[in-house]
Amino acid sequence: MSEVEKRLNEMGFHLPECPTPGGAYVPAVNINGFVYASGQVPTVDGVTVYTGKVGVDVTIEEAVEGARICALRLISELKSVVGNLDDIERIAYVQGFVNSEDDFGQQPAVINGASQLLEAAFGEKGRHARIAVGVSTLPGNAAVEVMLVAALK
Amino acid sequence: MSEVEKRLNEMGFHLPECPTPGGAYVPAVNINGFVYASGQVPTVDGVTVYTGKVGVDVTIEEAVEGARICALRLISELKSVVGNLDDIERIAYVQGFVNSEDDFGQQPAVINGASQLLEAAFGEKGRHARIAVGVSTLPGNAAVEVMLVAALK
Amino acid sequence: MSEVEKRLNEMGFHLPECPTPGGAYVPAVNINGFVYASGQVPTVDGVTVYTGKVGVDVTIEEAVEGARICALRLISELKSVVGNLDDIERIAYVQGFVNSEDDFGQQPAVINGASQLLEAAFGEKGRHARIAVGVSTLPGNAAVEVMLVAALK
Repeated sequence: MSEVEKRLNEMGFHLPECPTPGGAYVPAVNINGFVYASGQVPTVDGVTVYTGKVGVDVTIEEAVEGARICALRLISELKSVVGNLDDIERIAYVQGFVNSEDDFGQQPAVINGASQLLEAAFGEKGRHARIAVGVSTLPGNAAVEVMLVAALK
Repeated sequence: MSEVEKRLNEMGFHLPECPTPGGAYVPAVNINGFVYASGQVPTVDGVTVYTGKVGVDVTIEEAVEGARICALRLISELKSVVGNLDDIERIAYVQGFVNSEDDFGQQPAVINGASQLLEAAFGEKGRHARIAVGVSTLPGNAAVEVMLVAALK
Repeated sequence: MSEVEKRLNEMGFHLPECPTPGGAYVPAVNINGFVYASGQVPTVDGVTVYTGKVGVDVTIEEAVEGARICALRLISELKSVVGNLDDIERIAYVQGFVNSEDDFGQQPAVINGASQLLEAAFGEKGRHARIAVGVSTLPGNAAVEVMLVAALK
């Protein structure tokens, strides 16, 4: 088992099965030293567990937990193409979209749920560049959606 | 003619001229083994053919066709910087934005229009990672906008 | 001083201090020949100077100026990880989000503020691929947010 997974397990997290794409794409692509991992929403056992607008339909705390679920699913996508997660040199970039009312501006606090999990899992290698954006809706009315780009050794 | 273009032509598709940027940028950048192709909306002969919100102003079927038009234009952008499309090793990543009402959550079905065309054109090399997002408006009120990153041999 | 900074200074622009991340991420990541720079909003001395919807709360001209401020901050992020900005071979990709009413479609004109500054600073190397998108809200209700990917020699 990779050191990354050991750290996750010690914190009480367990990687889900690699997500099945909800369209005509693949979970992740490993090419020329980079891995692109497809956008994830907070799905558990096939159900999107946080839906609607953050601050209205779900609390910020729930959305943070949702972003954490996205991050675990993204790590599973990475594993599906790299095999050993310890071969990842860096989480390079995280892009997070938050289902938001027009007057909601705390997207960074929500996406921190994903960012903090990635740093906990990968240590210094998990510290990434990021953008957090508010949008009016997401696939399946999910509260949050996150994708990432990782770099290999 | 590249195998990619032959496949497109056999399916009845023809690459448009490389799109003229609608701002202070270029159609595509080829650097360090990757090509970034600029965001495309469904434009034909200079006119954005699908505008407004999917599910309200245009049907999902029309938006899927719009995403397909975006993909053809993205392939033209790729060709403008790589010359021979068969030199593309992989479509690495597709990012699609869908002009959506707040209660519309079928963005993945719309962006499939682009994804399926890319796979038809590039075969296994066309299978990509992806994110699909809903937004409240797009340039020129387009119904859909797509960009992509490709990798070279 | 790098040629890039000299050009900026000659035009009357001065790089701000590298922005402090507003969450659990870093300003930029330099890995495998690419630099990912984190999303920036138009902040001056710790205050977001253009907030709300472009065309309603701020004019297009103000938003263009906001995008220019974002670009200066992005260049500071690049500098924080590459040291000498002249080591940048190309601005590969710019992604811009504009806080928009549903009927606002001039996102490209707004993001031109960032694109033109990048080309003025980096010359031919500053000519990039791009996507501009409209969204319903952004962190701290910023009027515009921009990120970029650069490539190194």
